[in-house]
Amino acid sequence: MTAPRYLEDFAVGQKFGSGRLTVDAACIRGFAAEFDPQPFHLDEAAARATRFNGLAASGWHTAAMTMRLLVDSEFKPAGGILGVHVELDWSRPVRPGDELRVESEVLEVRPSQSRPDQGLMKVRTTTFNQNDEPVQAMVSTVVVPRRPA
Amino acid sequence: MTAPRYLEDFAVGQKFGSGRLTVDAACIRGFAAEFDPQPFHLDEAAARATRFNGLAASGWHTAAMTMRLLVDSEFKPAGGILGVHVELDWSRPVRPGDELRVESEVLEVRPSQSRPDQGLMKVRTTTFNQNDEPVQAMVSTVVVPRRPA
Repeated sequence: MTAPRYLEDFAVGQKFGSGRLTVDAACIRGFAAEFDPQPFHLDEAAARATRFNGLAASGWHTAAMTMRLLVDSEFKPAGGILGVHVELDWSRPVRPGDELRVESEVLEVRPSQSRPDQGLMKVRTTTFNQNDEPVQAMVSTVVVPRRPA
Repeated sequence: MTAPRYLEDFAVGQKFGSGRLTVDAACIRGFAAEFDPQPFHLDEAAARATRFNGLAASGWHTAAMTMRLLVDSEFKPAGGILGVHVELDWSRPVRPGDELRVESEVLEVRPSQSRPDQGLMKVRTTTFNQNDEPVQAMVSTVVVPRRPA
């Protein structure tokens, strides 16, 4: 159990790892059926005829699994992980059987101009598969409380 | 049924609307339990003590619901909606009972430098609640095939 961290506890260059999460075909299809019902996320045979050349997870599913890995990781801002802005790149398909993990790095830490009780932090989180190939790159701006005086 | 559109069929300024999707507390909690298990997304009482001041959907849930609205909308690039890069801003909590819809606008259309058979399009998709308040702003870069010669 890691103690929650305030803005003052974070510094540029800090890194945080995660556990691993295995992706199976049923969860790829289940997420897609609810949120992203396109052939390349729903059906192996149909997916073979698309540019994915086989079943691949929705990018939104990859983003959601990344969040789960992050919430369970040692990255524990006080008050939770609260993103206000995010940039995402999907570089490689996520396939059934893939095992995902994330690596986060603090890029920027700054007090808020308008809110003396909080600050903003920029964090890069890269999601890797079991071959250490990046499947998603994310840069998030998160709100972090300052340590109470 | 709208016919799929190639890059040549899109132009800056085109707009696309969507249907509506109602958000309930059970689906907010269900998504959070799987992907974003933080108190403000999981439990009404616990959420009241957080900055959200009540149960709110995970931003990733809002993003996933936005994708569903988009896939079901009249925005139909040939070959599907294939994002490679996305920027997201969450401006307002999504609450149980909210009814979401999206509005998309084409911001940029350009042929690929490296792939003569495809192009890239930048699209802004804003997600609104039933009071026409924006809850999420997204700018996506999507790959769109060119019309076969």
